[in-house]
Amino acid sequence: MQCSVFIAATIDGFIARLNHDIDFLPEGDVEEHGFTEFYASVDALVMGRLSYEKVLSFGEWHYGSKPIIVLSSRDIPMPSASEARVERLSGSPREIVQALSSRGWNHLYIDGGVTITRFLEAGLIQRMIITRVPVLIGTGIPLFGALPRDIQLSHVATRSYKSGLVQSEYTVTDGASG
Amino acid sequence: MQCSVFIAATIDGFIARLNHDIDFLPEGDVEEHGFTEFYASVDALVMGRLSYEKVLSFGEWHYGSKPIIVLSSRDIPMPSASEARVERLSGSPREIVQALSSRGWNHLYIDGGVTITRFLEAGLIQRMIITRVPVLIGTGIPLFGALPRDIQLSHVATRSYKSGLVQSEYTVTDGASG
Repeated sequence: MQCSVFIAATIDGFIARLNHDIDFLPEGDVEEHGFTEFYASVDALVMGRLSYEKVLSFGEWHYGSKPIIVLSSRDIPMPSASEARVERLSGSPREIVQALSSRGWNHLYIDGGVTITRFLEAGLIQRMIITRVPVLIGTGIPLFGALPRDIQLSHVATRSYKSGLVQSEYTVTDGASG
Repeated sequence: MQCSVFIAATIDGFIARLNHDIDFLPEGDVEEHGFTEFYASVDALVMGRLSYEKVLSFGEWHYGSKPIIVLSSRDIPMPSASEARVERLSGSPREIVQALSSRGWNHLYIDGGVTITRFLEAGLIQRMIITRVPVLIGTGIPLFGALPRDIQLSHVATRSYKSGLVQSEYTVTDGASG
């Protein structure tokens, strides 16, 4: 199973404001920055309850029929969109990956700061595409949380865009398994 | 007066470990990454007491006769190197810039996470060159501290190196004055 991250963060490392707003992202959407191709390559998204609740708060459903796995030990509300495929799972990152791998899935999109950090800590992320937004917001929800050890990355490529976005792709060169 | 930042940070935004170690930097030095030219262009370095104490702890003096301004309200120890030019100043970032500008200096190198954040908050930084080291260390001394407002940056250029370092240059497009 390959687990990948594709996320935008400010130069000071935040993926959202404390109220979960992402108004600092450039106008337009991120599909011109390789997202469409990446999204098509994943079998499912994995995110935590807080990220999912933020997604629901948008009203519109942006995920089509891509399976969304919400990590939570409690029941979750379901979206109203009829095409939505949402499922709740609980367990360690390794248990989640094993469960989803047994379905024949090969590629997971790991999303949200807490979930990304948990999967990194478990050595389950192989690839990270981080797009830096040219702004400092000073406080917010961090992309990365505390880690008990160093995680070495290997730089694959960096692309910069007219919007000022700088996208770097890394592979995780230690702790990777699963 | 132009104030610039030239600093390396991990992908998770740390400039040093909690014990101030920077052992995660690649082997060799950073002079091949534009540092020599940048360093030659500055009239002086400005850093906080903690950064200065770390510098002193190295034993060797790496700054030659470049003036080093240490921001502190208390007396500071002096380096043993005879060529060292170290001076203590105290005051707000704006007062520091005014005092150094009156000497005919035109370009300051602002260094250290706390000092950089204070100068950014005061709208006194015009240029930032941030070199990302391909590692996550999980905890450490952050490059950026809390800011009371957004600071917009403008992307100038990004360069990537075989070592895996990715260096992005930004200008600060709001709050800049001084």
